[in-house]
Order: sequence, then C-alpha cells, then structure tokens
Amino acid sequence: MAARADCVFCCLPHGDSASVVSALLDAGVKVIDLGADYRLNDPEVFAQWYGRKHADPDRLGKVVYGLPELFRQQIATAQLVANPGSQAACAILALAPLLKAGLIDPRSIIIDAKSGLSTVGRTPKLITHYVECNESVSAYNVGRHRHTPEIEQALSAFSGLTVEVLFTSHIVPMDRGTMTTIYAQPITAVDEARLLQTLRDFYEEEFFVRVLDHLPGTKDSLGTNFYDITARIVRGRVLLFACLDNLLKGAAGTAVQNFNLMYGYPETTALT
Amino acid sequence: MAARADCVFCCLPHGDSASVVSALLDAGVKVIDLGADYRLNDPEVFAQWYGRKHADPDRLGKVVYGLPELFRQQIATAQLVANPGSQAACAILALAPLLKAGLIDPRSIIIDAKSGLSTVGRTPKLITHYVECNESVSAYNVGRHRHTPEIEQALSAFSGLTVEVLFTSHIVPMDRGTMTTIYAQPITAVDEARLLQTLRDFYEEEFFVRVLDHLPGTKDSLGTNFYDITARIVRGRVLLFACLDNLLKGAAGTAVQNFNLMYGYPETTALT
Amino acid sequence: MAARADCVFCCLPHGDSASVVSALLDAGVKVIDLGADYRLNDPEVFAQWYGRKHADPDRLGKVVYGLPELFRQQIATAQLVANPGSQAACAILALAPLLKAGLIDPRSIIIDAKSGLSTVGRTPKLITHYVECNESVSAYNVGRHRHTPEIEQALSAFSGLTVEVLFTSHIVPMDRGTMTTIYAQPITAVDEARLLQTLRDFYEEEFFVRVLDHLPGTKDSLGTNFYDITARIVRGRVLLFACLDNLLKGAAGTAVQNFNLMYGYPETTALT
Amino acid sequence: MAARADCVFCCLPHGDSASVVSALLDAGVKVIDLGADYRLNDPEVFAQWYGRKHADPDRLGKVVYGLPELFRQQIATAQLVANPGSQAACAILALAPLLKAGLIDPRSIIIDAKSGLSTVGRTPKLITHYVECNESVSAYNVGRHRHTPEIEQALSAFSGLTVEVLFTSHIVPMDRGTMTTIYAQPITAVDEARLLQTLRDFYEEEFFVRVLDHLPGTKDSLGTNFYDITARIVRGRVLLFACLDNLLKGAAGTAVQNFNLMYGYPETTALT
Repeated sequence: MAARADCVFCCLPHGDSASVVSALLDAGVKVIDLGADYRLNDPEVFAQWYGRKHADPDRLGKVVYGLPELFRQQIATAQLVANPGSQAACAILALAPLLKAGLIDPRSIIIDAKSGLSTVGRTPKLITHYVECNESVSAYNVGRHRHTPEIEQALSAFSGLTVEVLFTSHIVPMDRGTMTTIYAQPITAVDEARLLQTLRDFYEEEFFVRVLDHLPGTKDSLGTNFYDITARIVRGRVLLFACLDNLLKGAAGTAVQNFNLMYGYPETTALT
Repeated sequence: MAARADCVFCCLPHGDSASVVSALLDAGVKVIDLGADYRLNDPEVFAQWYGRKHADPDRLGKVVYGLPELFRQQIATAQLVANPGSQAACAILALAPLLKAGLIDPRSIIIDAKSGLSTVGRTPKLITHYVECNESVSAYNVGRHRHTPEIEQALSAFSGLTVEVLFTSHIVPMDRGTMTTIYAQPITAVDEARLLQTLRDFYEEEFFVRVLDHLPGTKDSLGTNFYDITARIVRGRVLLFACLDNLLKGAAGTAVQNFNLMYGYPETTALT
Repeated sequence: MAARADCVFCCLPHGDSASVVSALLDAGVKVIDLGADYRLNDPEVFAQWYGRKHADPDRLGKVVYGLPELFRQQIATAQLVANPGSQAACAILALAPLLKAGLIDPRSIIIDAKSGLSTVGRTPKLITHYVECNESVSAYNVGRHRHTPEIEQALSAFSGLTVEVLFTSHIVPMDRGTMTTIYAQPITAVDEARLLQTLRDFYEEEFFVRVLDHLPGTKDSLGTNFYDITARIVRGRVLLFACLDNLLKGAAGTAVQNFNLMYGYPETTALT
Repeated sequence: MAARADCVFCCLPHGDSASVVSALLDAGVKVIDLGADYRLNDPEVFAQWYGRKHADPDRLGKVVYGLPELFRQQIATAQLVANPGSQAACAILALAPLLKAGLIDPRSIIIDAKSGLSTVGRTPKLITHYVECNESVSAYNVGRHRHTPEIEQALSAFSGLTVEVLFTSHIVPMDRGTMTTIYAQPITAVDEARLLQTLRDFYEEEFFVRVLDHLPGTKDSLGTNFYDITARIVRGRVLLFACLDNLLKGAAGTAVQNFNLMYGYPETTALT
C-alpha cells in the first residue's frame, strides 16, 4: 500500500497555487499554502488587488489565516492554512494587541516597511540585478501593494473593528529581513510604559515574540523565527518598530509553526 | 602682501565649530558652516535638543539657513551660512512647496527617513562596524533626532505657518544616499496631478531639483547634486518620496551652491 | 559538592589566552582554545611571527592542532586543542590530500584568500567602519600574515614534507565566508579527474567535506559547518577553490566537532 | 550639408560590434570599440577563445590596442582602437614595466582578479540576482576567461617576449572596482625598492597611474580614472597589487583618454 502525504507545503508562485491546492484539498490532504492565492477571503477584494478573478472563489471564506499568535485554535483544526505575507505578518503582530486593547485609532494607521531583496522574489529582473539595487533604497508598488488588504482583513477579523491602513514598502540593499515602522493615533492618553505592557501581556506566552525596551535591528532576528518589537510615543503619536526574518518568521518558520499546531507537535519543534 | 581667505568652509564636528566660526566672523571672513552649531536660531531650542548651552547665542538669530532653493536672496548677501543637515534638507525641499500652496496640514507631517552609513559620521564605533550594520536596518535617536527642530524651523520660516513634524531616521546598509518618505494630511481635495504640478511650478527654475512621475531610488542621484522627488495620493493622504546624495546635495554640494551664490558665480559652477 | 567544568571553550583575544589556558590545564580541565596562542608549536616561530615571547613555551610542543579531518585520533585524547584559524583551515584541508598523495610540489604553493569582515575582529577601527570597507577589496598583512606558519606547520606535520606557502589575504565586503584560491605546481602529470578522485577518496568518510565538480561560492556553505572544494588544471598548474563559513567550519563549528571527538559524541552532534 | 560623426564610441555586446564597426570604418569614421570583438589580432586565437569565427578577420591584424600608457603613439593615428577589457587592463599595466625591465619570468605569471558585479554585464541572470551574489565570493570561467589571450597578446607585443599567464577571476559583492593580485617569479635578485622604482620610472609622466608604497583598496580609485599599484617581495616571489574602477579606467575613462589622443586634446580632458 502506497504512503500518502497528509500535509503539503505549497510554495508555488502567487496565482499558480489555486488549482493545485484545490485538487489537494479535494483529495483530503491538508495544505499550508505559502503563496498569496488564499490569503484574502473576499473574491471581490481579491479581484480588485490582484487584477483577475479567483480560480477557487467558493473556498475563500473558509481558509484559516496562518498567523499562530492570533489564530492558533483555528489553525489547529484547519485543512487549508494561508501562510501570511512577510511584511503583512510584521505589521499585523505589532498592531493586533493595541487594536484589541482599544489604544489606537483603527483608521489612523501608517505602515512604512523596509525589506531586503528576497522579499521581491527569485526571478531575475532588472530591479533585482545586483548593480541596480545595491547601494540604493526605493519604494515600490505604492498604493497597490497587495499586503494592504491582507493586513486590513486580518486586523479587522481579529479586533472586530474596521481597520484601514496606509502601507508602503521599500527595498533596501540586503538579502533578508523586514522592518516595519508604524505610526498611529492613540485613542486615549497612553504612555510608552502602557504600550509596552500591553504588548508584553498579550505576548506573555509566546515563545517567538520578544517585546523589547530597545529599538530592534533586522539583524537581531536574522536566521531565527523570532519577532522583535518595541513601542514609542513621539509628539503624541504611537510608534511601533518591529523586525523579523522574512524567510523564517515571515514565511517558512511560521509555516512550520502552523504544521506543528495542525499535528499536535510542540510549536517550537524544528524552529530553535 | 599676504593673501587672505575671503570665505571658509567649516567642517568641524557638531559642537566644535561655534568658537572657531565666531573668531572668523569677527575677522570679517565669510563662513559656510557644515556643522550643526548654527542651524537653529533659538538658543532655548538649541539647548533643548543639543543638551547644552550655545557658545555664541547672540549670533543665532542672524544666521542664514543655507538651502538655496528656499533662501537664495538671503544667502547671496550673508556673512554666515548654516549648511543644512542632509536628512533635513531632503524633507524640507519636499514639503516647502506644498505648505506654501496651502495644500497640506502643517501639523500632520510624518517623515520617515532611510539613510546610508555616511550619515552617522566617520568615528569608528560598534554601530558603524561593518559586521554590525551590514545586512540590517534599524531606527536610531527616535524622538530626539536633531533634524526635527531644524525641519520645523526652516518650514515655519518659509511658509509663515507653525509647522510640526514627526521625524524618524533609519540606517540602511549602504554608503551614501538618503530617502525620505513623507505622509501628510491634505487640507483641500487634491489629486496627484495637482501635487506634481505644484512641485513643478515651484521648482521650474531650479537646475538641481527633478520632479519625477516615477518613484526615485537613492542610486539615481548618487554622486550628483540632484534632488529627486515625486508625489502620490494613497487612501486620501499625501505621500512624498524624495532622494538625494547626503554627501553632495545633502552637504558639500549645497555648500558649493551657497558659495557660488555668495560670490556671484553661476550656481552650477563645479557641480555638473 | 560543586559542579566542575570538564571542558572550556576559550575565546580570548589572541595573546590573552596563554595565561588563562595554562591555569585551566594545571587544574585538569580540558581546553579548546579558539585563540591563536597555542597554534604554533615552536616558540621561536611564534616569536618571529607574533613579535613577542610566548608566555607558556613549554606546552607548545604538546598541543594538538584541532582540525578533525586530519588529526582526529590525537584530538580524541587531547587535553589542549588549538582550534585552527579560519583561513588556515580553508587552505590546509584543500592541500593535505594532494601533498599526501605526492601530486604537488610542497614549495610551489600560492594561497590567495578572500574573506568577509568578521575575519578581522569585532573591535571598532577605521578599517572596519562600514563606509571604509563597503564597496572595496583590499589586501592586508601581506608577507606577515600569521596564518602562514600555521598552514606550513600543519601541512608539514601531516604530510611529512617540508611545506612552504605564500599566503595573501584580502578583505571583501561581506559579513562572513572565506574562499581560498590555491595555485600549485604538479609533480607528476595529473588531470582534473585524478585531482578530484584523490580529494574524494581522502574525504570519503567525512560528513562535513563536499568535493564538488562545480566551482563553489562562499554563500553555498554560509551558516553551515560544510567545507566545499573543487580542483582544476589550468595551463599545467593545479588550482584549488575552497570555501567555508569562517564563523562555523572556520571557528565555532570545528570547535564543537573537536568537543564531540573529545567526549565520544557523534561528530555531527549540534552541527546539522 | 549634413554633419558627419568623425568618431564613434561603440558599446555593443561582445560579438555584435564587428559588422557595425566594419561598416563605420568603410565609411571613413574613426571607431573606439568598447566591445571585445577587435581586441585579439589573430583570428585563430579569437576562434579558440570565443568559440566562433570572426566576422571581420582581415582587419584584426591592423587594430590598435587602446591602452594609452603602452600604445600612445599608435592610438594617436589609429582609425580603429580596441578598448581593453577592465581586468586585462588592470593586469597589463602592472606587468608591462617589469617585463620590459627583464625583472620577471614571462612564463611564471599568475593573475588573481577580484571584481564587482558590473564586470559581468547588465543582462538580468540568476548569477547577478542580488540574493544570489550578495554576501558571496566565487570564481567564474576558470581556464576559459577571455581576458587571458588579451593579456598575453598585449604584454607579448609590448615586451617582445613570449608571455604566458594563468588568469582567474572572482566576483565579489560590490558594484564596481577591480583588484588584481599578481604573483611572478623574479629572474634576477630584486628587492621591493627596485620594483617600486622600476614602476615609478616607467610611469613618471603618466597622470593616471599612481605608484604607491601602501596597499591599495578598490575604493581609493572608485569614481576616478586613476590606476593604483604597489609591489612586494614575499618568500622570494614578486607580488603586485593593482586597482582600478572597471567602469572608468577599465572602460569609459580609457576610451575618453583614447579619444583625446586621437584628436589632439590634452589627455586628461573630461577626466579630472
């Protein structure tokens, strides 16, 4: 009798996974999809941001968003988990606790991301040619970056609020690593101590989240599944500085975390 | 008969130039100061941001801020010109035209700067050690970066408004180049076309300012005295993306521009 | 009863470890020294290359050189193991099999090393300032690099020949990784197939050595304890191209390998 | 009456220029070819290294090799100048004076080049993708690098000797800059002082060649048309360390120098 794959990590290019994934799901296999096809749960929103109809629209509403720190229980019993985009994950984990605690205005959020070149993908193009992107910083996909609806959907689902974000992404000359600098308007009077305490309380049980007093650099979490974050108040606004390795906590690391949850392994297995 | 220096470019470390500069000025010499000592014109504000009393407070009110595109006439007849900080210049040139035109709220401004390592200075420290800062992005001096009051002062002086900015700066792994991403609230309904037209009208006669349709990267102006800028509207907010080479348009290049103005040379002399 | 350290990994700066190590050894503790103090076994040679007398000369003759692929048996029973320098290890592992097989002239060897900045050490100096060393390649310590006698001693001891090498090292702008390009005169007529077969036979049982057909890049072994090597014949000369991660196979990785040997653990423990 | 181009700088990809260039030459136009098509003067050698027949073999013997420091007079009156390859130029300028002076064995020469990514060309390929080549050093085209016959031809022509070289090239993670480390056997007893004096005498009148006591880094000549070189004796061998900016002295800078020579302008025009 032939062995059968119980679970597939699907790493197809964005747009190519829907047909493969739906066949796998029909065959009863569990899927952790690292592509973007199943991250949005509304076919209309998908069409608006991806510029085409979704190939498997009926399933969209039933997919679990694979961010363990926010959706652990749903992941544990899911058949299909949509692994988050790295820059989306970096922003969502920073904002979720403060939105849940009612500390920031859900429509005031500005997210300024800085990411290394592996964020852009491996296909050789002029923009990823060493001599083009080395020694340079530039923004890309301004106003149409697909992590925007992903962030809004996850934060709205988690907080029960209507969250709107302004998201811009910048490419910086390094291989890996994402930093998001987030600006938000506080709803009530808060100071840094309360912001940090809110983050610490929220992530108290989380092995992979480190709430810091100091400002993190992306190198601090490079090669690890850790997520580093701190908070500041400047001129009355809430500032969040968060870093992760986009290939680990921002992709494969979280996928393994999801796998561990789906199969009852300790969540840190193969990640420390 | 001995030759006499008519004009001195002063490049002393921040804090060291005041005594030297005041002696030079007393001797009738013109000075372009590339340090920070004379950039702020209020001794109280200086003390607040620099943590000590100014050594030459009486002169502070009479210094000309050396950004030719905004203060050309004053520079032409000045004895002492305070050359701008590179990240300050990058933000000020982006915002001045829109504030002057009354298009953005002067208290809504968020400036997110990304700069190469030469911004930090040449003294060997752990934070500038190659292995520390390579392959990493991090923020620094959050809430106390001294370009904050410099930007506010220049924009308030130029626009006649009370301008307040939230400024954060990030170090990215490259030698040179500064990009500022700016977020502001529009006062009236504006579209991108009007933003770009306002910038183009304002900088029509300026050789060193390039108002672009596309998003600039810092490498596009590397090794030149050019300043690149474009504008976008995203989710109702005004976004500005501006780049310069912090060692040229952000420092020595502007100093030469100022020198040319003070001595009646064509402004592009030695800069093209 | 107090616990006692059986084995110490000593990571003191070169020159500082002799006094500490000798005290530890006198107390019966095993030591793996990652510094350079015990790598040479002749006090005269030490004095010549390090410019001072050795603090513990009597021990020098009895130290085991910690390159497991060449000195496995001695390491297993050693009290003091001198962990190799990273660039030395990279050259020695390439040359040992060919010298042992009598294929190359032991006095014809030229080693041209290229290494990332972590090779130079963590103390902030002008030469490790990001802006100094980024976007630049340069040679250093030409004619007096201390890995020269280390390579000669290990290869002579292993092959029984009098080996003399010309070693130069270059700093390239990256964090980690060492590549050595080696040029040697063949003694007998050899072709590439025989060179590769000699390497493959020699390292047949070695988990951490990968003899390749293609040219390796330092990134291929980055973050691993692997050692990559290939060989070519060009214009009648033997060429060897070898890469390792100087912080792992070139330092801490080999130290762990040595520890495993000294305590009877499987050699790959904690390294895969 | 229509204006006519007197001189064309031809920058076509290697292999594409022969047909264009021959048409231009037939029309009486002067050509400085920055491609490789006319660098070798023997159609057989061309076929051997480039893997195809040359499209314009009759002209090959009559082309002038465009290295002003060695072939100034021929360049001044040439109709077709083949601009050197950057890594070839870097090696040739180092070796020519010592070969001419009879100080080194013309068959003992090993050239180990290290170059930034712009050496490889602008077409997007996997090997130039930022994430592939960043943080890595690797050799390429070992044994079949086309600068080998170019170096041999130029040095043989200049010195009157039969020069054979072993040339290897390595890609290092930076935009621009080439360093060559050269190893050669002295013929007579020489010391460093004599090597340096030989270089200084040879290049006494050359504005763009700097013979240094210290070891150069590629950054020292970055953005300039300078060529930096020094010499050492290590273990009885002659070592040469030479650097240039492959886009200037290694390409466009030398092309302008050639143009100046061909039209009687001062050789430094537009290059300082």
